[in-house]
Amino acid sequence: MTLSRRIYFDHAATSWPKHTDVLDAMDRYARDCGAASGRGQYQSANMADGILHSARLGLSRLIGSPTAESIAFFSNGTQAINAAIGGIVRDGDHVVTTAAEHNSVLRPLSHLAETRNVTLTIVDCDHDGVVQADDVLDAVTGSTRLVAVTSASNVTGAEQPIQAIGSGLRSRASTAAFLCDAAQTLGYLPIDVQACGIDLLAAPGHKGIGGPQGTGFLYVSPSWHDEVTASVFGGTGSQSESLAMPTTMPAKLEPGNLNVAAIAGLDVAVKQIASRDDAVYSETLLSVAHQLNDGLRGIKSIRVFGQPSRLPIVSIAIDGFEPTDLSAILDSQFSIETRAGLHCAALIHKAIGSAAAGTLRISGSASTSRAETAAVIEAVRQIADSLG
Amino acid sequence: MTLSRRIYFDHAATSWPKHTDVLDAMDRYARDCGAASGRGQYQSANMADGILHSARLGLSRLIGSPTAESIAFFSNGTQAINAAIGGIVRDGDHVVTTAAEHNSVLRPLSHLAETRNVTLTIVDCDHDGVVQADDVLDAVTGSTRLVAVTSASNVTGAEQPIQAIGSGLRSRASTAAFLCDAAQTLGYLPIDVQACGIDLLAAPGHKGIGGPQGTGFLYVSPSWHDEVTASVFGGTGSQSESLAMPTTMPAKLEPGNLNVAAIAGLDVAVKQIASRDDAVYSETLLSVAHQLNDGLRGIKSIRVFGQPSRLPIVSIAIDGFEPTDLSAILDSQFSIETRAGLHCAALIHKAIGSAAAGTLRISGSASTSRAETAAVIEAVRQIADSLG
Repeated sequence: MTLSRRIYFDHAATSWPKHTDVLDAMDRYARDCGAASGRGQYQSANMADGILHSARLGLSRLIGSPTAESIAFFSNGTQAINAAIGGIVRDGDHVVTTAAEHNSVLRPLSHLAETRNVTLTIVDCDHDGVVQADDVLDAVTGSTRLVAVTSASNVTGAEQPIQAIGSGLRSRASTAAFLCDAAQTLGYLPIDVQACGIDLLAAPGHKGIGGPQGTGFLYVSPSWHDEVTASVFGGTGSQSESLAMPTTMPAKLEPGNLNVAAIAGLDVAVKQIASRDDAVYSETLLSVAHQLNDGLRGIKSIRVFGQPSRLPIVSIAIDGFEPTDLSAILDSQFSIETRAGLHCAALIHKAIGSAAAGTLRISGSASTSRAETAAVIEAVRQIADSLG
Repeated sequence: MTLSRRIYFDHAATSWPKHTDVLDAMDRYARDCGAASGRGQYQSANMADGILHSARLGLSRLIGSPTAESIAFFSNGTQAINAAIGGIVRDGDHVVTTAAEHNSVLRPLSHLAETRNVTLTIVDCDHDGVVQADDVLDAVTGSTRLVAVTSASNVTGAEQPIQAIGSGLRSRASTAAFLCDAAQTLGYLPIDVQACGIDLLAAPGHKGIGGPQGTGFLYVSPSWHDEVTASVFGGTGSQSESLAMPTTMPAKLEPGNLNVAAIAGLDVAVKQIASRDDAVYSETLLSVAHQLNDGLRGIKSIRVFGQPSRLPIVSIAIDGFEPTDLSAILDSQFSIETRAGLHCAALIHKAIGSAAAGTLRISGSASTSRAETAAVIEAVRQIADSLG
């Protein structure tokens, strides 16, 4: 299965490589413990419960959650977003979201709009993929139940004004829940749910956090614990005599066996974030973003969508190439792994001008080396030049 | 994390240990490839897709599915059951299920009954936890949309008459979909979805199959592909310009990033089943079930619930001990890991006479040694005798 040489620029899909301590923790748990969580009175089952608690605590600290019980685990970010939307929005509600969202937000909301009499306002973004906080706030009415905004576009890396929206909702005394899809920023950029007025925050564990595939979580602020309802139902190892789900967080959102092995890896990844030097990390990430942006934007014959952000995510196009062909050439001729197309974001492409065929997305991380970034820039330059 | 000595009898929750080849495949995928599936044009993303296809194919062969596309992946059995129920049952439908079900079936159905005008008929089981096929068939009407029956009780191991129910539904030309929750039997006992007339089969990958935590799947028979709808929505790496989910299996049920590493492990586990000698395996499993049943049923002062089945799952009680205390004593004094309580099965306990405090469940597997089984029998005998 070993790939002889590869330069990985698809971090916005999932981070790679994972730290060996993360993978070792998973493997060790599976080999030495392996018990299901929340269901047993024995030593290794208690060990499983301990791992879940540790990971909840670590994630709570990472995002400024006041309690560990506010964190519910899911198998990816999409499941967490669905739990948030399905758990909060009721028939007939009004919801505000944006054109910069991923389909993990747009598709569940569209389904509710079609089947449950939910009214959906989709706020436009500008040609850089950026949403204006006032546009979002102005769309909120007295009957708005949910405001769902991503922390950054997965297509352009454009950061969205989460803090301004959260503060604005507070100052207008809105009763809407504020859901932040932090898929592209969590672990990369700091966020504090309380300072930002975020009621619900969903994120995968396997992107910026650096945890394993199969992890994700939803933060539900204590004031929404009673409001959020289950949309997936099953055994919870508690109140088993009842045909209804438990009413307490996080059990109400966690039916079925959790992937404790993966969460053991996530726990280690979160601890690594807690122990790193934030200033050094931010500078490293920013330097990758700068190098990638400066290099690509310096190639005159290509199009770059949006403006540089603090994230090393850049979407480009080269006239004469389909983005899918471009990605295939980068892989086959340069061993550079990128992603082409619409990136599961249905609406942003019209705004940024890439609706026809999408973009080629090049997404690095703080672990991307200067040589790797130089390699992708040079490869893109060569391909662009080949058209003469 | 290493536990010095442990005798694991909680296989009905999750199997342990996993085969080292299963864990090695996971770890190798995560270290050497690690790409997200279904979203990239590059070599390692194609490798991810290849693993998914291989696992779908293996599971198809395991259950007699006519196509690999009939298999959709989930993070556990509960998610798969919810996808089946949510994907088939519509407002106002009639559903037939049984009192022997796990809460992963009973809770989503109860929720639909409470909120979506779904009429639910719960067929009783006898005092051994067994459902009569005719009772199920007689409950089916012309407006029955779904018949949901487990292949075996997770409390007593009682096997249910899946084939008779499936055949009966066919011979009566029922238009209902037949859902089998195979959580406790798949990998242990053979099943053929076509021979049994099963339209939907849900199972975890981490129990009898021996795959890793974080795996599960749903089989949807081709005749139901168009009928089943998504209940979780998000990016699928396909038709990204649309705000609706794709209409084809398995994409329509698989939004978000799949746990490819875990599925790589599952793929190996399924291949191991395909290559084993079925006759030898069945005999081994049966000998564990016999030894466990004979030994425990030979202890006069304990109660054993239900009758022996082909599965090494036995539920007991000892007067004078709460099952939870019994489980704690077995762990602390004998290093034997069992599970106590209601086992996420709300309704079966009334039928089998364990509604007060549930049972102590002792569940082995084909890998359980004679010495381990002898140890748990002897430990239970000592505890029972201690009451004098």
